[in-house]
Amino acid sequence: MSEESATVLIGIKPTMNYVLATTMPLNERKKVVLKARGRAISKAVDVAEIVRRRFVQDASIDAIIIGTEEGKSSMDGRPRNVSTIEITITPKKGEAAKPKPKEKPSAKPAE
Amino acid sequence: MSEESATVLIGIKPTMNYVLATTMPLNERKKVVLKARGRAISKAVDVAEIVRRRFVQDASIDAIIIGTEEGKSSMDGRPRNVSTIEITITPKKGEAAKPKPKEKPSAKPAE
Repeated sequence: MSEESATVLIGIKPTMNYVLATTMPLNERKKVVLKARGRAISKAVDVAEIVRRRFVQDASIDAIIIGTEEGKSSMDGRPRNVSTIEITITPKKGEAAKPKPKEKPSAKPAE
Repeated sequence: MSEESATVLIGIKPTMNYVLATTMPLNERKKVVLKARGRAISKAVDVAEIVRRRFVQDASIDAIIIGTEEGKSSMDGRPRNVSTIEITITPKKGEAAKPKPKEKPSAKPAE
């Protein structure tokens, strides 16, 4: 079983470019980590959802991590933080290391 | 121990409005679920990060769920899907139901 992983950095290109870049390693049974910052975070979620629903239907979301990156704004020199997201997609259901990947908004978190 | 939860829908208002709306229930020891669709997803991540880093430092991200909502585009009538996110924040570290909430982008997912 392969435990290689590919990283896809989400930026300003069209969503379908990243969908393709994510689908290819998944079809080779590689894990994919989507990384995005700031406004591209929404696009990263779009990519994960399109891939999982349309292109690699046995893929599943393994982990989603959010964070903050500290940086400087070039505009006024004040420190400016930017949010980040990392979405790990595994090629096959059940190969995930996590106990139970959640995939539907309807699946409520354990309460 | 309270298991009440509050839901904050992230929309087009300024980020700090949602930060305040999230901080208040957390200070009452209530769980908060941030919900967002489409472009507001990035803002939801910003809200979660600002709350956790600046306002309620013992809060932790309990679960992040992404999904797709099917709807109609009013523009051309073609069906148009929109991505969604739900971020559950618990008021206190250790109260989380999940085994170990990950909080930093530097914390790599298990490989």
